Amino acid sequence: MTIAAQTAAIIGGGVIGGGWAARFLLMGWNVQVFDPDTEARRKIGEVIDNARRALPGLSDVALPEEGRLSFHADLADAVAGAVYIQESVPERLDLKHAVYADLQAYCDPDAIIGSSTSGFTPSQLQQGAARPGQIVVTHPFNPVYLLPLVEVVGSPANDTALMDRTSEILTALGLYPLRVRGEIDAHIADRLLEAVWREALWLVKDGIATTEEIDNAIRYGFGLRWAQMGLFETYRIAGGEAGMRHFLAQFGPALAWPWTKLMDVPDLDDALIEKLSDQSDAQSGHMTLRALEQARDDNLVTILRGLKARDYGAGALLNAQDRRIDRLPAALDAVPDLAAPIPTLSRAVPVDWVDYNGHMNEARYLETFGAATDRFMALVGCDAAYIEGGSSYFTAETHIRHLGEVRAGEGIGVETQVLKGEGKKLHIFHWMRAGDRLLATGEQMLIHVNLGTRRASEPEANVAGPLARVAAAHAALPWPEGAGAAIGAR
Amino acid sequence: MTIAAQTAAIIGGGVIGGGWAARFLLMGWNVQVFDPDTEARRKIGEVIDNARRALPGLSDVALPEEGRLSFHADLADAVAGAVYIQESVPERLDLKHAVYADLQAYCDPDAIIGSSTSGFTPSQLQQGAARPGQIVVTHPFNPVYLLPLVEVVGSPANDTALMDRTSEILTALGLYPLRVRGEIDAHIADRLLEAVWREALWLVKDGIATTEEIDNAIRYGFGLRWAQMGLFETYRIAGGEAGMRHFLAQFGPALAWPWTKLMDVPDLDDALIEKLSDQSDAQSGHMTLRALEQARDDNLVTILRGLKARDYGAGALLNAQDRRIDRLPAALDAVPDLAAPIPTLSRAVPVDWVDYNGHMNEARYLETFGAATDRFMALVGCDAAYIEGGSSYFTAETHIRHLGEVRAGEGIGVETQVLKGEGKKLHIFHWMRAGDRLLATGEQMLIHVNLGTRRASEPEANVAGPLARVAAAHAALPWPEGAGAAIGAR
Repeated sequence: MTIAAQTAAIIGGGVIGGGWAARFLLMGWNVQVFDPDTEARRKIGEVIDNARRALPGLSDVALPEEGRLSFHADLADAVAGAVYIQESVPERLDLKHAVYADLQAYCDPDAIIGSSTSGFTPSQLQQGAARPGQIVVTHPFNPVYLLPLVEVVGSPANDTALMDRTSEILTALGLYPLRVRGEIDAHIADRLLEAVWREALWLVKDGIATTEEIDNAIRYGFGLRWAQMGLFETYRIAGGEAGMRHFLAQFGPALAWPWTKLMDVPDLDDALIEKLSDQSDAQSGHMTLRALEQARDDNLVTILRGLKARDYGAGALLNAQDRRIDRLPAALDAVPDLAAPIPTLSRAVPVDWVDYNGHMNEARYLETFGAATDRFMALVGCDAAYIEGGSSYFTAETHIRHLGEVRAGEGIGVETQVLKGEGKKLHIFHWMRAGDRLLATGEQMLIHVNLGTRRASEPEANVAGPLARVAAAHAALPWPEGAGAAIGAR
Repeated sequence: MTIAAQTAAIIGGGVIGGGWAARFLLMGWNVQVFDPDTEARRKIGEVIDNARRALPGLSDVALPEEGRLSFHADLADAVAGAVYIQESVPERLDLKHAVYADLQAYCDPDAIIGSSTSGFTPSQLQQGAARPGQIVVTHPFNPVYLLPLVEVVGSPANDTALMDRTSEILTALGLYPLRVRGEIDAHIADRLLEAVWREALWLVKDGIATTEEIDNAIRYGFGLRWAQMGLFETYRIAGGEAGMRHFLAQFGPALAWPWTKLMDVPDLDDALIEKLSDQSDAQSGHMTLRALEQARDDNLVTILRGLKARDYGAGALLNAQDRRIDRLPAALDAVPDLAAPIPTLSRAVPVDWVDYNGHMNEARYLETFGAATDRFMALVGCDAAYIEGGSSYFTAETHIRHLGEVRAGEGIGVETQVLKGEGKKLHIFHWMRAGDRLLATGEQMLIHVNLGTRRASEPEANVAGPLARVAAAHAALPWPEGAGAAIGAR
């Protein structure tokens, strides 16, 4: 699915609007921004810089070509040609109504107008609109360029086609549209957050814990659980062999106990604000806002990439997105020139691949060559189904020469040549480059194995055949510089 | 700090007691279990099996020798010699009081009695006890063998020495003792959880979302934020350049809005229990309890190891624990025999290192050899301070021969021989073994570089000297089989 060359309008910058702009842009859309703030260009630029640093490396394939970003002083210009319009102006209903009136005077009547509102229902937003059915809640989470959740809420005025189209566009951006079944204030996630927030305010006010202690109570405990399963799947496990009903029977009585002060609301007076701010300064004041943002983003990329390797939770969403945007040949017949080394990898270096020397860590070179080998294997038919069938290739030897450094965010590509591919052996040679710059070569000897016996075996015909075809085509290529050499032999 | 040969008593098994038993055991303590449940041995055994699978690989160094596990029908036997007793019996105050009376009749008066209670305050637990000052709240989080948080709560009856000793023991187990400043029902984390739980029950009851949708609203959004930062540090960032005070001013008004139903408590009647259970079955019923547990544990290990690489949040706690339990030589003078290959790595294979072939992925071989190289570099003086000073070694070439497979949980070790270490070059050879079984060899050529110019340079004397000492000692060793060979040359 290609989503390039479409246009989105971003109404209102700031952290949320900037995050939307970054995600559209990096997923290949043209983005037209309207924001009367004289600082909008700088603020959005900073968010996009953060996004460019973190988002591309989340993907194991290359992102689409970045779209075009433009700023417009005139609302009519900003929405011209836009099929999707995201409104992220401050949380005041009268202001939002005024913005919609202006938008609907100029925009395509078929465009989607999504609102980033945290609290208002679609029915509230649609009040007095010329075309209520065009306005829908699309509530994202900060940082919008990394977190996949978007709550999508409609009212009876929104038809199913518009709701479906909204979900499709958000999915194509790598987001997860959560269709909320009913209209309530604050949708779903912010209701949960508001409950925690109120309780946390009491804990600080009553001197039971500081802001830092509350953060530690979250991130050393249930926060780790909630990054991968949520509340109910976690509690299902807590119920043990007896399951969810047992858990409910056991935990239910706590509802009647004085375990929360939420029947009451703390007064956020000056004294409490001072206390919270002072504690937050003591906890995080040694880091600048930019350093905190980058720490958060690097942590999120690390967690998300970990879940991706597990194909679980938000990681499964990322794998689905990679499949949607992957442009490398998926079959041997799609390889443009079989008589040349085959492109087997194209991606950006993730922020979590960099080590204390400030460059991509050596083990990630082998991870990259391993991914290229996997892709090559799949091209000749040794794919997931073949492996499921009981055979695979195991790497027996690898020789890597590190010829250049590469840093987080840079694009890298791998091309692969077959040196020998017959019988049980597969001898291949990879080049890793950033643009024209050669970063490393990787020579690998693989052995075809029977996964039952774990011993060498002949490949099946559906692999041996395609492999012989590539080997024959590559036989005419020159022997790569460095292939067959021992360490130290330059 | 060595913690071996101490004894802990576990009173009450189940998921929580079993988790405590597993953590003590794997950290080298002897564990004595008392639980009248006839299934206790099986249930605790299953938790320990899960822990053995997941916990050792969290560490980048070898855990202590596992302690001795025993089950006792007699409470007096179970607490004999125990310096720490963990009570995890069901959440009924009269039952807990009866257990403490029995315990205090037999146990060492200086032993700590920690309670896993979610809800009771220490003052409540201590009522009527012979020695109230011995009893303290040590509330853990499931799975106890992976999550570091323990809430430690005392009453005025507990003296500071006992509270400090409790924190010391928990820290030595790799846990994070969060000292709670005051006694309230449900301490800190369960108050936050209870608030979310009540709100979530309303969302399901009112048909706004299913259990799965609520879980997705958490794990695709704020759950990812909370696994690394908590509530307040996240909101500090949301406040943007204007900081925490700005955030509070902006978000404060929501306290007065109808964003939560928590002033009211849903009735957990049969209809709601059915609805929750049915939705949970639809969401997770395709997975057995054991499969869910293992998915959770593998996800947690992945997230925790990711945060460890970033040295952030719970990952920083894990690094601190590694430094406490590391037993490999930390200095050249501590190496027992300098005329033999040097032990440079000892660890278990983490669950997230295994690939689709069911064995440790090839890139992890290089990660392991890279860690061994880092350790060797530190031994000869190329440590964090030296690198901070502007010099380091970069890997120029690596040759790996994969000679055997290894699976998650197995212990692996690396020994390292210097082939040549003079001038700008460092040529080393690693053997990776599981017990006596050779898994791989790794030959590496490293070049000393100036981190400013990124060009080759001579090492400083504080590295060149120790390196020459090792090179001289290793010069008499035989040339390793396989060193200097090209790929395919067996």
